[in-house]
Amino acid sequence: MKMETMETYPIQIGSVTRRVPLHEPFPGVRIPLVNFLGDVEFVRAVAQELLPKLPDEVDLLVTAETSSIPLTHEIASARELNYVVARKRRRPYMVDPIIQEVESLTLGAVEVLWLDRRQAEWILNKNVALVMDVVASGGTMKALEKMVARAGGRVVARMAGFHQGESELEIVTVAELPQL
Amino acid sequence: MKMETMETYPIQIGSVTRRVPLHEPFPGVRIPLVNFLGDVEFVRAVAQELLPKLPDEVDLLVTAETSSIPLTHEIASARELNYVVARKRRRPYMVDPIIQEVESLTLGAVEVLWLDRRQAEWILNKNVALVMDVVASGGTMKALEKMVARAGGRVVARMAGFHQGESELEIVTVAELPQL
Repeated sequence: MKMETMETYPIQIGSVTRRVPLHEPFPGVRIPLVNFLGDVEFVRAVAQELLPKLPDEVDLLVTAETSSIPLTHEIASARELNYVVARKRRRPYMVDPIIQEVESLTLGAVEVLWLDRRQAEWILNKNVALVMDVVASGGTMKALEKMVARAGGRVVARMAGFHQGESELEIVTVAELPQL
Repeated sequence: MKMETMETYPIQIGSVTRRVPLHEPFPGVRIPLVNFLGDVEFVRAVAQELLPKLPDEVDLLVTAETSSIPLTHEIASARELNYVVARKRRRPYMVDPIIQEVESLTLGAVEVLWLDRRQAEWILNKNVALVMDVVASGGTMKALEKMVARAGGRVVARMAGFHQGESELEIVTVAELPQL
């Protein structure tokens, strides 16, 4: 049995507690594996913490697929906002998409975000809050920021459920995740 | 300017109306392009239509990423259920995943669904409703059905916002999408 299935890390958000498994991306480095996909109660608890910090002037949320979608949906729903989801693969129906490379600290596969022009039009002249479940190096969030600028929007807030490690971005988060 | 950006198809769900663009996957075949990602009002309207048809005995929803996530989240949230999302790519943290091939009518790239063992454990002994935004050939839904069986769950309902074309599956849907 692998070590990451044998130990857990406790996370408490409001009245909701989860003991999450640990993942070992590199030998000797273990990080808590927070799951936002499908855990409605947990997503709601995190959204409740972030909502008071969402500036009033925000009129659109922007995120990247996949695991950040439920949190973004929950926040958008509570504030009667729409949101835009940047895709990680080109979809067949995309017309004239904005293509934005993600600068990553880990060498190897280059990740690219794709935004259909129809969704890009939602962003034009909007005050945007970027929303993610977990921010680590901040590479994806920086790519979203560039994408929003290219689509003619203005980023007025950056929010994430959790922050893990170092990033120079100013991000509103609910909690810090340690390296164990 | 491409043809699909010039014409639209009207969709009315409850009191919500959208004029959606047409996509031309093959020359001469045009299909309405329904968008569930980021359109909170539309997702809610579709969820409201499906909720009365969700059997009482369902205790978990199962879907596949990406565009079906908001609808699944909305239905799960209204009924205080959790849900499981099968992924289309292996994630680095997955332990002993269930791997399920999607049988597709279109030749070429084989699609595979990945389910982390931790999420598979949510399915064991559960009454499951499969939820998708749009079902066409039904290949993805059939793959989800096999995945649920392999994880020890029982599919008691299949639901989709829209049905497009032919499939032999019995699926509860809100509306039919035509080929134009």
